[in-house]
Amino acid sequence: MKENKISSAVIKRLPRYYRYLGELLEQGVERISSGELSKRMKVTASQIRQDLNNFGGFGQQGYGYNVEYLRREIGKILGIDKKHNMIIVGAGRLGQAIANYDSFSKSGFVIKGIFDTDENIIGQSICGVEVMHVSKVAEFIKKNDIDIAAFTLPKSHVGEMATIVADAGVSGIWNFAHTDLNLGNKVVVENVHLSESLMRLSYNIADNSKKKKR
Amino acid sequence: MKENKISSAVIKRLPRYYRYLGELLEQGVERISSGELSKRMKVTASQIRQDLNNFGGFGQQGYGYNVEYLRREIGKILGIDKKHNMIIVGAGRLGQAIANYDSFSKSGFVIKGIFDTDENIIGQSICGVEVMHVSKVAEFIKKNDIDIAAFTLPKSHVGEMATIVADAGVSGIWNFAHTDLNLGNKVVVENVHLSESLMRLSYNIADNSKKKKR
Repeated sequence: MKENKISSAVIKRLPRYYRYLGELLEQGVERISSGELSKRMKVTASQIRQDLNNFGGFGQQGYGYNVEYLRREIGKILGIDKKHNMIIVGAGRLGQAIANYDSFSKSGFVIKGIFDTDENIIGQSICGVEVMHVSKVAEFIKKNDIDIAAFTLPKSHVGEMATIVADAGVSGIWNFAHTDLNLGNKVVVENVHLSESLMRLSYNIADNSKKKKR
Repeated sequence: MKENKISSAVIKRLPRYYRYLGELLEQGVERISSGELSKRMKVTASQIRQDLNNFGGFGQQGYGYNVEYLRREIGKILGIDKKHNMIIVGAGRLGQAIANYDSFSKSGFVIKGIFDTDENIIGQSICGVEVMHVSKVAEFIKKNDIDIAAFTLPKSHVGEMATIVADAGVSGIWNFAHTDLNLGNKVVVENVHLSESLMRLSYNIADNSKKKKR
């Protein structure tokens, strides 16, 4: 595999390839050309070939791609060929929604613990996972080999919690709080800022309505 | 305002400018240079100037930006100077989490109705909004001038529901279901694919760990 720097646009598309290849497998498709994949995914065939060439290709000229092999290799690139132990910090509705997503565990993300400060829900079980007090986060991370912390807690507590989970040894934070986290190169952060997504939708609605009027 | 095509990268950054400018306002900051804004947002000053020049500038040489004015203008570009009436289709944990986000209503996104098929929750109120049966979606959209539908329903029902809300007249769909929607240029779609976000985190964790080993 090449060691070139992969652009973030390519990395953004990889999970989508992975999903489509999974759907093809479910439909019993064993082999697919970049042309066919292109039609289904609504991206150009040359884009697909270019993207996959970043990782050394995977295709045989004239034979197309072996769906199962390609999916497995993309899974390896995405690092989901290994299990990731995850915790959720914040057991509100969003934290519960995440605990409830069964597609995460299918991709190897295993939720091991949920943390909150609300005594009313501590000790309860959400989707089979116990809610514990946040004061136990650091100890739990160390004992259970946790590498991802999902943050579904109020923005005001995020900075402090980030330091705690980083010091305890997580490799990544999946941040839903509406604030930017920067922990240098110690811990990787993936932000899901729902308000910003909604504003992009609003922008595109306004833009689309202008186009229709022209 | 220029009518050039704005790149999606710029549009992605606008909500973040809007958020930072809002925080500055809360802190009582009235005027800011692109240099200072750059330090806070951890993007280059030239990037900020370039981004804002897409919309005609807003800055006065040597005087910096008027925070309140700039925020209001970016709000207009994002289309959040007007109210958006929104419905949520799917009253599960994720639908409830979205209904519960008070920052959406602050930005003018008003949740008017929540829909589900589960008779146990129909008639209940979630954050002050009534849960109704999905069979009433089309009528409700027409009567209440709804322009955004948030989809937090199972993937298998998304295609059918998309046709219903599009025909009833929404302008945009905010799609959380793990499938791609394509409704041509009739309705704008913004996807929030949480599994894909988690896979990007996983990729970046693997990539960061390789870098540390080098």
